[in-house]
Formats: sequence, C-alpha cells, structure tokens
Amino acid sequence: MPERITINDRWSARRHAWAYLSRVIEGPSAPLQQLLAEGRDVEAIAYGVKRREPWIGPLLGQTATRYRTDSAAEDLLTADRNGARLVTPDDAEWPSEPLDRAFGFVDAASDHVGRAGGRDAVAPHALWARGGAPAELAQRAVAVVGTRAITRYGWEVTRMLVEGLAASRWTIVSGGALGVDTVAHETALANGTPTIVVAACGPERTYPARNAALFDRIAGDGARSAVISEYPPGVHPARHRFLTRNRLVAALSGGTVVVEAAWRSGALNTLTWAARLGSVAMAVPGPVTGHGSLGCHERIRNGDAQLVTSAEQIRELIEPLGTVDAQAQYEFAFPPDRIQALSRTELKVFDATSSESRVTEDVAAEAGITVSLAVHILVDLQQKGLVQRDGVSWRRSG
Amino acid sequence: MPERITINDRWSARRHAWAYLSRVIEGPSAPLQQLLAEGRDVEAIAYGVKRREPWIGPLLGQTATRYRTDSAAEDLLTADRNGARLVTPDDAEWPSEPLDRAFGFVDAASDHVGRAGGRDAVAPHALWARGGAPAELAQRAVAVVGTRAITRYGWEVTRMLVEGLAASRWTIVSGGALGVDTVAHETALANGTPTIVVAACGPERTYPARNAALFDRIAGDGARSAVISEYPPGVHPARHRFLTRNRLVAALSGGTVVVEAAWRSGALNTLTWAARLGSVAMAVPGPVTGHGSLGCHERIRNGDAQLVTSAEQIRELIEPLGTVDAQAQYEFAFPPDRIQALSRTELKVFDATSSESRVTEDVAAEAGITVSLAVHILVDLQQKGLVQRDGVSWRRSG
Repeated sequence: MPERITINDRWSARRHAWAYLSRVIEGPSAPLQQLLAEGRDVEAIAYGVKRREPWIGPLLGQTATRYRTDSAAEDLLTADRNGARLVTPDDAEWPSEPLDRAFGFVDAASDHVGRAGGRDAVAPHALWARGGAPAELAQRAVAVVGTRAITRYGWEVTRMLVEGLAASRWTIVSGGALGVDTVAHETALANGTPTIVVAACGPERTYPARNAALFDRIAGDGARSAVISEYPPGVHPARHRFLTRNRLVAALSGGTVVVEAAWRSGALNTLTWAARLGSVAMAVPGPVTGHGSLGCHERIRNGDAQLVTSAEQIRELIEPLGTVDAQAQYEFAFPPDRIQALSRTELKVFDATSSESRVTEDVAAEAGITVSLAVHILVDLQQKGLVQRDGVSWRRSG
Repeated sequence: MPERITINDRWSARRHAWAYLSRVIEGPSAPLQQLLAEGRDVEAIAYGVKRREPWIGPLLGQTATRYRTDSAAEDLLTADRNGARLVTPDDAEWPSEPLDRAFGFVDAASDHVGRAGGRDAVAPHALWARGGAPAELAQRAVAVVGTRAITRYGWEVTRMLVEGLAASRWTIVSGGALGVDTVAHETALANGTPTIVVAACGPERTYPARNAALFDRIAGDGARSAVISEYPPGVHPARHRFLTRNRLVAALSGGTVVVEAAWRSGALNTLTWAARLGSVAMAVPGPVTGHGSLGCHERIRNGDAQLVTSAEQIRELIEPLGTVDAQAQYEFAFPPDRIQALSRTELKVFDATSSESRVTEDVAAEAGITVSLAVHILVDLQQKGLVQRDGVSWRRSG
C-alpha cells in the first residue's frame, strides 16, 4: 500500500516541520503568522529557515541563533515519552475558533498597534498537550486567575466562583501557578468540570514542581482536561514566558476573572491581555482593609475590568444575552417586604397608624393629606393586611 | 428707639412666618419653593396659607389639614428650651451655597422630572439646628453613610475613611443612625473634624434614643459640629422622613460614600440622591463572601457609583482637580523592583543567566537574540547591578 505510506510520510514530514519551527522560533512570531496567513506551507517555511532563504524576511533574525539545530524527531519522542503530543493547525483538535477570534480582534483593533508587547499579540504556531483536545475544551472556557499569595478570602472566592461555573460546565483555564490558579484547577477537578493548565515551559516539565501530581490528574482526567504549552520539550519556565503564556490563557477564554491580585500582580497582565484580545475582563472586589484585592479595585476603578461577585454575574457577561439574569438571584433572595413596596403617600399613612386605634381624621392630619384620600389608602392597607379597622378607627395589624 | 423695636418686630414676624410654614408644610414643598423663587415674601405666603388665598395654588392642598394650627411661638420656645434654633434663608448661617448647587442641578436636569420622589427634589424651607452654623460646616462636607447592621469590616473601613478625611478637615455628614452613621460621627469627633447629623424628627427628640449622648456631644462640640433637621418640634421619626432626610444628607455634601450596604439598605437611597443632585456617588467594595457590601457592589457594577477604597481616592473625586493624586500612594508604597522595570528583551537575557557562569554565546542562544545585542544588554544589566562579568562569562549578582 504505497499510497498509504506516502500519506503517512507526508503527515510525518509536516509534523516535523511544525516541531522544528516550535523549537527554533521561541513563543509567538508575527513574521511566521504573516507567512502562514499568506498561504505559505509549513514545510516550505521550515526549509526556508534552514536554508536562510531571503523570502522568510524577519524570520531570518528570529531564528538566527537556533536554526541550525533540528531536534524535531527528538522533541516529538520526548513529548511522547512524557504522555504529551504536538498539536498544530493541521489537527482537528487545534483551537482555531478561540484563537481566530482573539487574534483576529487584535488585528482589527489597529489602535492597539505599537503598544508594549504588541509583537506577541499573535497566535501560537504549535501547542504541546497532555490530556483532552484543546479545541473541544476551549469551546466554553473562562479564565480564573490570581495571586500566588492567596489569602483565606481569595481561597473562598475562587472555590465559590469555580463551583458556580462548574454547575454549568464551563471549562476553567488558568496558569497552574500556586495560589488562586491551583485552587481554580483543583475545584474544577473536584466538581467534574473541564480545566486547562497553560504552562510556560516544555511539556515534560512541571512548574511549579509542587503541582506535579495536580497536573498529572488534569492530564489524566479522562480527556476532559488538559495541560498545554506553546514551548517544546527542554524549555524551562522564565519570567518573560509567563507573560507570553498569560496571553494564551486569555485567548483561549471567553472572559478572564481576576479573583485576588495585589498592586503589581502578574494576574493583572492576563486581564490586560483579555481586554486587548476582545474578551471580557472581570475582577472580584475584596476587603479594602488589606492589599490582597488592590489590583482588582484599581482595574475596576479605571474602567479596565467589570466588577463581578458571583458565577452568575460572570455567566451573564460571557454567555449569550438573556441566558442568565444575575440580578434575579438577589430579587429572589431579598424580596421587598410589604412595607418597602408602599408608595411614599401610602408610607405616610401607614406611619401615621400605630398599635393603638386612631380615628381617620387624626391619621389624615398626621399624614398631611385629606380625609377622603386617607380613607382610600387605609382601605388599601387593610386589604394588604397591614392595618385593621375598629369601627371608625384604625390600628396596625400584627 | 422705636425704629429698633420695629426692626426687631419685623425680624420676629418673619421668623414666626417661617416657623409657621415649617409646621404646616411637612418636609420639602415644590409649590412653596416655586412661590419663593417668584419673589413672594415669606410673611405674605404664611398669610395666604392662613386665609386660604387662591394665589398660593397647590399649597392650598398641601396645608389643608394643618393650616389652622399656628404653633410658631410655641415651637420656637420648645426649640430654644432644647438648645435648638430656627435657621431660615434669611440667616447668614443658611447653607444656601450647597443647597443652590444641589437643587439647581436637579432643576437643570430635566430628564429627572417625573421620577419617583421627584416632588421632594427641592430645598428645605427651614432648618432646626443645634450646634454650629450649617453654612460654614457644609462648605467642605462629605457624606459617609451605611448600614445599621454594621460588621467588623464596616466598622474598620468607616474609621479608616473618616480618619483620612479628618486629616484634611472635611466635615462628615451622616444620618445619626446606628451602625456606619454612628461610627462616622464618633470618628469625626475623636479626630477633631466637624460633623453634621441630619435628623428625621423634631429638634427636641433624639432618634435613635441610644445616640442621645453622641448628639449632645456633637451639638456641644464648640460650634464645630451640628445636629440639624427640617422638622419642627413634635415631629417624630418615620420611614418616609428618613427617605426625605437622605436627600438633605446628599445635598449638603460634595459627595456621598456608602461604606457598607446590603441589597435593600436605606443608605443606597442617599447614594441615589447624590447622583440626582449632581454630587459624587461613591461606594466601598468589600468581601463578596458575605452580603454586607452587596448594595455597594451593585451600584458600582451598574455604573451608579464610583469605587473608592481610601480617603485619598474620595478626596481625588471631590476636591479640585490636581489637589490629590490617589494613584501616587500605591506607586510610592509598591515601587516596581529592578526586574519588573526591565523590557521584554532585557528580561529574556536576564532569565538566560543564572547563579552559575555562562558564556555570552549561550546566553544569546537561550534568549534567542544575536550575540552582539546580548553583549549590549548584559553590559546594561551589569550597570543595573543585576549581573556580574567573569571574564567572557556572566552570572547573576547577589
């Protein structure tokens, strides 16, 4: 069956080309995305990089120090040995829908061009994944992120929000860091809702090391959850990669919620990305007596994030219009009592009655209205069960 | 000295006319304000009310049940016996400036006409006061209000905000209720800043009774503070009067801050008034794990109140532009560290170094940049004290 072998060879060659580019081009690359958008084939681009062909343009510079090393076969093997696989735009499980939406938005919003980090505002060229299919998991996803220095309050809020989102099966995306991220992933697992860790290092590594067991549980969660990264095997976590990773957390989610973040928390960077990529930026308020929610408050104050206090309010912002009525929960939990529902004049009349009987004229004089209007309102109040009639007098019920 | 007697008689007659109108017209009266705005004299209006003259228009109805009783002399005596006095638009201590600003705004904002409570959106016609001069006290005033069901958190925040406002001698206006109001007044007194209680009953009464000693201290605070009300002696507190009173709390203040308020808290009514009267509506966030700040969060969420977390932020909103820089406090308290201040490329280079020495070529390859750029940046980082040179190698400092 020579044709089959050819197809497999072809497939394998493309895969190696993607793996090679994933290795020699660190993180997102606007020039590479540009070439792909122009219809250039991945194998042709990989060949162009290796042969230093001028038409690859700025990619020449981006690959200058690394182009000589082709460790594609080795990287694919390392990934496989660690239960990971390469996911590329060729694959059905490639999350093209959220990525197109997010990076298409930033392309369209030309006023963002030139802002800090602008060169990173492009899609990843490849992903390394353990667990379920990114495309499926990211269909209904919300990012829940926050400080590593989590407080008891941040812990309670993260659990409350993720439990609420789990009830409607939203995928919880986060960065796998200690603190809020960890509580978000753990609560998702515990409540049977999908979760995605977006890591800032190669798929055979775990950062932070303390979360190794958690990441293994996520990768092994019956294909419901996943650990993904745009970095190939061997890449260790680094500050600049966390910032680049944050863009992917935001890009894969319909909205990003920062639960707890102090003044210069990295979680706020994810919020900035959410706003840039056209998804909903949300922040949870907290006590102003500590510094834990300072960053959240600043973003709300400046109009850069929407204040949210519950899973319902998050859903109201990220689900199609009219699906959720977050206001209703309060109306339901705190209905107005019969007295709060009275009009101003009714209130004046009611206030003019007491537990002792009072003739209509006195009630009218106290309320400052005519006797005939007082009678009219008193009869109404009687029907509402608020006052009782004693002959020509009135007194409050109960 | 007959002329002097005449002046005194004249003054006394006007005073009685105001006192009479304060008694027979409950709370604010749009028809009365209309007549005054047309230039009608207070004595002429009082005469018109007593004689049921048609030109007083809707005032006929408003005074129908009460016009016969002229207890002006008795009311002035009762007030005097209780250390209170009548304050009218004739007096220098009448707070015409804030009242004109507030009710002039609502007049101008014609889109508000017809909203619930619209008839109350006019100035009081008289005030009954104990303590200092309302005009002076209300020159730089901010309302601090909130729930009666105060939590430990609400208590801490109220103290923190009022202490901060006291440092710049802002007058603290509140409703004298238990909970947040009481803590606001007490903290103002303790920190030597003026405070005003706006009561919803006659000046010889105290509501709540538990605050009698506090109100006496406020009234006796060396004319620095005051207890005021638009209700004449004998009027007891009632729900509808609290709502009317709230408008006066907001009207006398350049801004209103709700510290803690649950879903249907009356303090939110004061916030509504602040917005209607053109002053700054502010709310403090709090834990979302309880219900204490639910009303504050709702107002912020709906854009009906500005989120504030400190006295500086309140001052920034109510003081002239440029007086306060609330942002500066955080920049000062949380300066960026040397690493946070690095550019993305500098960060890549710094991340490529470690405590062990590494040759420039390896640093450049790891950072994905050319060797010459790496040298340039490494020398910069060396000058910043972040890396050290070991011959042809580099390692992190410290």
